[in-house]
Amino acid sequence: MNNKKYKLATWVSLPDRQWPNKVIEKAPIWCSVDLRDGNQALAVPMSIPEKLELFNTLVKIGFKEIEVGFPAASDTEFNFLRKLIEENLIPQDVCVQVLTQSREPLIRKTFEALKGVKSAIVHLYNSTSPRQRKITFNKSRDEIKQIAIDGAKLVRKFADDAEADGSHIRMEYSPESFSDTELDYALEICEAVKEIWKPTVENKIIINLPETVQYTTPNIHADQIEWMSRNISEREKVLISLHTHNDRGTGVAATELGLMAGADRVEGTLFGNGERTGNLDVVTVALNMLAQGVEPNLDFSHLPEIRSIYERCTHMEVPPRQPYAGDLVFTAFSGSHQDAIKKGMDIRRKSECGDVWEVPYLLIDPEDIGRDYEAIIRINSQSGKGGVAYVLETEYGYDIPKAMHPEVGNFINDTADRLGKELSPEEILHLFKDEFVNRVDLLKINSYKISYGENSEDVSISAKVSYKGADMEISAKGNGPINAFVNALEIAGLKNFKIADYRSHAIGSGSASDSAAYISLINPETSITTWGAGVDSNIEYAGLKALVSAYNRYNKA
Amino acid sequence: MNNKKYKLATWVSLPDRQWPNKVIEKAPIWCSVDLRDGNQALAVPMSIPEKLELFNTLVKIGFKEIEVGFPAASDTEFNFLRKLIEENLIPQDVCVQVLTQSREPLIRKTFEALKGVKSAIVHLYNSTSPRQRKITFNKSRDEIKQIAIDGAKLVRKFADDAEADGSHIRMEYSPESFSDTELDYALEICEAVKEIWKPTVENKIIINLPETVQYTTPNIHADQIEWMSRNISEREKVLISLHTHNDRGTGVAATELGLMAGADRVEGTLFGNGERTGNLDVVTVALNMLAQGVEPNLDFSHLPEIRSIYERCTHMEVPPRQPYAGDLVFTAFSGSHQDAIKKGMDIRRKSECGDVWEVPYLLIDPEDIGRDYEAIIRINSQSGKGGVAYVLETEYGYDIPKAMHPEVGNFINDTADRLGKELSPEEILHLFKDEFVNRVDLLKINSYKISYGENSEDVSISAKVSYKGADMEISAKGNGPINAFVNALEIAGLKNFKIADYRSHAIGSGSASDSAAYISLINPETSITTWGAGVDSNIEYAGLKALVSAYNRYNKA
Repeated sequence: MNNKKYKLATWVSLPDRQWPNKVIEKAPIWCSVDLRDGNQALAVPMSIPEKLELFNTLVKIGFKEIEVGFPAASDTEFNFLRKLIEENLIPQDVCVQVLTQSREPLIRKTFEALKGVKSAIVHLYNSTSPRQRKITFNKSRDEIKQIAIDGAKLVRKFADDAEADGSHIRMEYSPESFSDTELDYALEICEAVKEIWKPTVENKIIINLPETVQYTTPNIHADQIEWMSRNISEREKVLISLHTHNDRGTGVAATELGLMAGADRVEGTLFGNGERTGNLDVVTVALNMLAQGVEPNLDFSHLPEIRSIYERCTHMEVPPRQPYAGDLVFTAFSGSHQDAIKKGMDIRRKSECGDVWEVPYLLIDPEDIGRDYEAIIRINSQSGKGGVAYVLETEYGYDIPKAMHPEVGNFINDTADRLGKELSPEEILHLFKDEFVNRVDLLKINSYKISYGENSEDVSISAKVSYKGADMEISAKGNGPINAFVNALEIAGLKNFKIADYRSHAIGSGSASDSAAYISLINPETSITTWGAGVDSNIEYAGLKALVSAYNRYNKA
Repeated sequence: MNNKKYKLATWVSLPDRQWPNKVIEKAPIWCSVDLRDGNQALAVPMSIPEKLELFNTLVKIGFKEIEVGFPAASDTEFNFLRKLIEENLIPQDVCVQVLTQSREPLIRKTFEALKGVKSAIVHLYNSTSPRQRKITFNKSRDEIKQIAIDGAKLVRKFADDAEADGSHIRMEYSPESFSDTELDYALEICEAVKEIWKPTVENKIIINLPETVQYTTPNIHADQIEWMSRNISEREKVLISLHTHNDRGTGVAATELGLMAGADRVEGTLFGNGERTGNLDVVTVALNMLAQGVEPNLDFSHLPEIRSIYERCTHMEVPPRQPYAGDLVFTAFSGSHQDAIKKGMDIRRKSECGDVWEVPYLLIDPEDIGRDYEAIIRINSQSGKGGVAYVLETEYGYDIPKAMHPEVGNFINDTADRLGKELSPEEILHLFKDEFVNRVDLLKINSYKISYGENSEDVSISAKVSYKGADMEISAKGNGPINAFVNALEIAGLKNFKIADYRSHAIGSGSASDSAAYISLINPETSITTWGAGVDSNIEYAGLKALVSAYNRYNKA
């Protein structure tokens, strides 16, 4: 390909970097930029009612800082902010954030939009990278720095006026395109703005270091953040904020490594909505924290509901493999995966609640984010016995004996392979019943009567059966109904097997529930076993039906 | 949220790690697992014709190693491999790879499927992590190791037989669930397999270290890979292979940092298809290399075509924000982004080809992967003047004067905001023409005649015009047609402006093309300017129409 056209991004040399030894131990300050970055990237930007619905959802999730727009840039955003303020729609503990370029009329209009707000962050930016200086502005380093200084002074002045009117104003500065700005220059310009704003420990300056375009691997981003975090003056008066994009598919990683590198705050959007490849996906970073035992301070315990509001408001769709939220992310099609998941879930069900989650292949418990177990195991030609057994058990209550799994699994698997498609739980149930349950193709019980002697192990059976279409009556004694029936078959000359295994259980609960029974017959010569199942409201009859099913499969094969 | 249920994954302590100082300087060996991992994760797995189409596409992209399936696990995969071999569909320089669990009947069947192959990699795996040992297998470390050893011996034996039959067999071992296996144990089991296979420098063993489930940030994965790469014996006889998944949304980062940590080989799929959140997206990693000037050795110069084959074969869709391939990833809606992109593209067009790519906001040139510039700039209420000018220029040939951009941009932007939707290029053209071009609402030229004196600057005009519906004839002299017409308006008492600017250009090329002219009028009292445009096949008339358009807008406002 045309690789000569591109060059390796330059990066900081930080051989004594500390971030690779760190882990993320607490949640950062989160700031949602859904209503700004996210909104601007939609072919059809949100209407005011849609913005309001999303705003309320963000509040409910737990965001305390929400960028609501660029009020100087569009009437809708101006009006939306006015509505929030005038109708008192911003909760006491939530701070709205507004973005403005560093230009006088825009800054003035931004503060007009904020009039009467209780608490707000004014987010000032100008673009600082060499390519932006050269191509977009045709200005020198000093001239670009002057843009920041002039804007910062204006913001300081208007903020003082607003504070005098009773608003609490915090300030954020972004050297936009930080990711390809020379670090010394980024520091110089941030220090200049900081000098004007005079932050305190109580009212810190937010220095947001945007990865406007991803040019590098995420470790370089972390080096850049650690360098800034180490070199900025009066670090205790500064919040370092991250704002990663996803051009190289590494937005989540850049944010995570940036947090390890010392950042205090993260800007991002739900599901990574945003210009081009999108902004950071806050959902993923927050739930990645959860998966490592860190409370994220954002509540995604009803993720499917949040997803549906998001999809309605933005008209974007969450793709099926999106971490945590996608339709397929808790689904296993592969047989070996299904088998392991089934075992993990079985162990989990049997042990006490509150145990550490350790089901193979599933990073977190889908229930913790409001998803159900239904779709965990889906059956196609790549699936195995464990998956089929899991579906039959969780969906329909058939707890098929482990020794029977291969026979059922292979049968379903071969069918899926032949049909070349995924089988729904209904189809699997249907196939299972047709092949294994209550089969009457060769031998059939029409009616039977059992009587017990004084000893409960002294059982007599007399049954009317059809064999190859001919009615006959058979009878015998035994130590239980199954044994008696087998003896009766022997007397009638129909016994060509031994019973290898017998299991039964109630399906569902309550005295009116059906029983399922499973019997395997073994061929004394070949040692090959054949399973059959029976279902009946009478457990005794279920057992006999299982025997007959197994007999019919055994003698058909 | 329920964070007590999860715990921090343990990780290796590697304070002297070297990978953060490395950069990716060359492409790895690529292995596509689209036909195995990718296929197994589809609700409807691929049919044989679909597999064949995808296989041929993978070959065309440049993959030299392609995992074609798990032939012992499904008839379709067995038959597909037989078809490839028997119909001689595998190019000489391509090696097919097959996966098998470490169990005798599966290994035997795998080699049956390979009979007659020229060159193949047999990929043996068993699962090694503590949770897999405990939950799935209920076996000790030694017992699990024995599974690997027994399988490795069988593979060695069958491979020797196959080699005797003229096949070239290479071997790959995966300690599956490597990402949460104790490193010392992973090393021990890999060494045991290596000891049996006895690799050479010419026929290296592939040690694949799968991040089967992502439990950690990607730097930990890199530490694990570097540790293994440093500690495995006879490193020169070993290829370290990566196989990352994407549970935490960091599959790309894990692979990139893993390459920096010393890996030689990467397994992944097109667009990250695969179980759950998917496998590594090879397209992204390869094009990330390109974007840093490294030849990826995979040809994605026709990415839209590859995407459409992929979507047809897998029935999956590439989402709109997927890096490089998604519909929206080269699209800018935001005004400041559009402005910068327009400037970058203008500079690029004017300079010589072969220059380093440095258009702001666009990581690579969309043309390098077969995408066009059409959708780069799309117009919604968040867009700006630069974007509108870009669309009118690139789509319709109107090179609107820079000073006119704000008037056109604000007009279009306000309309988009009012309509609350994205405007198509056609709609923008329509709005632009209605508002600015050939307006006749107040003043209209019905016909005109120009005569030139001896001196070319000595021009007379006589025009039949309508003004507020009343016909009149006006005439005057001037130093050019526009000047003469303005003088005629003055004589008629209709001049209340000065001309501020005049530009014109041909639309398209050739002598039959239309001309566009742009005139701005300035109000001598307020200094406010108003632009109008005229289009006509006659450049002289285009100028007069522009004047009339501007006049009508000026006097309407």
